[in-house]
Amino acid sequence: MAKLVESLRWTGDSLVLIDQRLLPQAERYITCRSIEHVIAAIQDMVVRGAPAIGIAAAYAGALHAKNCIQEYGDIDIGTFTRDLDRLAQARPTAVNLMWAVAAMKEHVQSVNAVNALPERMEKLARVIHEQDVHANNKMAALALECFAAEPVRPFRVLTHCNTGALATGGLGTALGVIRRGYEAGFISHVHADETRPWMQGARLTAWELQQENIPVSINADAAAAWIIQNRDVRWVIVGADRIAENGDVANKIGTYNLAIVARYHGCRFMVVAPSSTVDMACENGAKIDIEMRDAAEVTQVAGHQFAPPDSEAENPVFDVTPAGLIDVIVTERGVIKAPNRTKMRAVFGAQQR
Amino acid sequence: MAKLVESLRWTGDSLVLIDQRLLPQAERYITCRSIEHVIAAIQDMVVRGAPAIGIAAAYAGALHAKNCIQEYGDIDIGTFTRDLDRLAQARPTAVNLMWAVAAMKEHVQSVNAVNALPERMEKLARVIHEQDVHANNKMAALALECFAAEPVRPFRVLTHCNTGALATGGLGTALGVIRRGYEAGFISHVHADETRPWMQGARLTAWELQQENIPVSINADAAAAWIIQNRDVRWVIVGADRIAENGDVANKIGTYNLAIVARYHGCRFMVVAPSSTVDMACENGAKIDIEMRDAAEVTQVAGHQFAPPDSEAENPVFDVTPAGLIDVIVTERGVIKAPNRTKMRAVFGAQQR
Repeated sequence: MAKLVESLRWTGDSLVLIDQRLLPQAERYITCRSIEHVIAAIQDMVVRGAPAIGIAAAYAGALHAKNCIQEYGDIDIGTFTRDLDRLAQARPTAVNLMWAVAAMKEHVQSVNAVNALPERMEKLARVIHEQDVHANNKMAALALECFAAEPVRPFRVLTHCNTGALATGGLGTALGVIRRGYEAGFISHVHADETRPWMQGARLTAWELQQENIPVSINADAAAAWIIQNRDVRWVIVGADRIAENGDVANKIGTYNLAIVARYHGCRFMVVAPSSTVDMACENGAKIDIEMRDAAEVTQVAGHQFAPPDSEAENPVFDVTPAGLIDVIVTERGVIKAPNRTKMRAVFGAQQR
Repeated sequence: MAKLVESLRWTGDSLVLIDQRLLPQAERYITCRSIEHVIAAIQDMVVRGAPAIGIAAAYAGALHAKNCIQEYGDIDIGTFTRDLDRLAQARPTAVNLMWAVAAMKEHVQSVNAVNALPERMEKLARVIHEQDVHANNKMAALALECFAAEPVRPFRVLTHCNTGALATGGLGTALGVIRRGYEAGFISHVHADETRPWMQGARLTAWELQQENIPVSINADAAAAWIIQNRDVRWVIVGADRIAENGDVANKIGTYNLAIVARYHGCRFMVVAPSSTVDMACENGAKIDIEMRDAAEVTQVAGHQFAPPDSEAENPVFDVTPAGLIDVIVTERGVIKAPNRTKMRAVFGAQQR
């Protein structure tokens, strides 16, 4: 098996990110030496994918603690906490970012001597990174148990956006499942939605799968219904940016569309995400803030303006799939079939509100 | 009201087509002086839209009859008919093309003196063109009667691909309805799917509507479910490339997807197409040949390669929406609510098979 691409690499005094905006045409790396660099990289989508963003944020905290000590010989906890809050706001929808920042803030609050903070923050980031790698492996193993019940194997799957090594610290979420499902002989072919407007499917998912010789074909997003109908797709497998307490899932725009279409065809729908994506403080999908990005991401492609000048475009980059359309949520802490609030609480515990 | 753009113009000895591949960035015209020019223009999508293709084909027949007489002083009926058959095969899904060629072949069979053919073919083409203009107006008037029953007005609509003046000889089919619906105060805003891979929505629909100051915003195709859910879209209005005897509708890829999503949200779904789009010889949608175009239309955008080199892509450019998902089919010969075979036969007559 080809070595997995690394979305990010910690050098000890910098965070190196592969520039996902340029892939697969160019493989370029951006070295972040400050929290500001990482915030910009998250906002500009140099790094993307909810788990990868969470890990990048954790390293940004480590970087910032080091820089403060190096520059001022001290850390002002108030300022430092506000900087972490700005980091948390770099993108609003994915909860892993907020989750990582909350974990860092706990460390900041509980530290006795600020001099110890750089080391503690670095250790925390490494743990978050390693946990993600393990979660990916565990989720893939759990998902394969769902596939074992399939009467006809191997089967075809369809995925949306990129949820692979580039979107995580390890194997990937949905794409990790697909990797292992292919190796195990469950999956014969992957249909990849191109995933407008950023083309993560055509660019990143196709690239990751091709490197491992897993059969993949790209399709326009609007062709997904035709593909499911005519290519005998058995499972749609996607990631998540935030999962609410009732099992509603926020994910890349188009996921909701796909869940409706999958249900219409009796095709099964699986969401794969680490527990850091679960937000038990969020009652349901209606409470999730949906990021609206620049209209130019829709009206232009690769710098080429398609729409007439000054066209209006609406560019919601996430949508919410209601729990009722989801057959299985796979997390490293367990598989939730036909998710609802009761089942989610059984796995993740009830949250005080 | 701004003057409608003309998708095509007959000069008497040539057919001038606006090059729809370049719009709206450049307004260039291509002059076709032979049937071969027109075949290439249809295949290369200089002209597109089922009704416009049918009209272009009719003028191509007129052009060919003129050229034969001018060049050879005679028309060999066998060769001429085979040339028309090649024209009919330029694109496989839209039936208007075959319908226009069938009408031409009838004229060819019934003509007494081949010298009379150029004039008769030209007259036929003009009639087909005029009929389309009238059909557009009539369909818009009939659709407005459907809107009059809406309790809350004005409402928002969503459309897919381009079905306007560029796709027809006149006002447009679905976009003709939208134009008149906006003028009449029924429609407040138009959401236009960008319509990958050719971006007819972002390029052509947005352009046509902006010229008439009709409020329009573009969205990625995969955002349609989010738009319908969050923007209170009341009607999805689309055109058709072929309508089968049972009311199944072949149209631009993504239409089927949209129909499923509209039904899920209780949003109404209208198909607008002239009777030349109805193919009563086609029993149902499963019998419709779906054109598969080059993978490069998906893997590249505006000459920019997104996907890794040698990526596979599936590029079906039409899909079939089952009659059961359609609330209304509007043709100039009448409105068919909840279409089925019996109702289609009542309007279009039973076909011998």
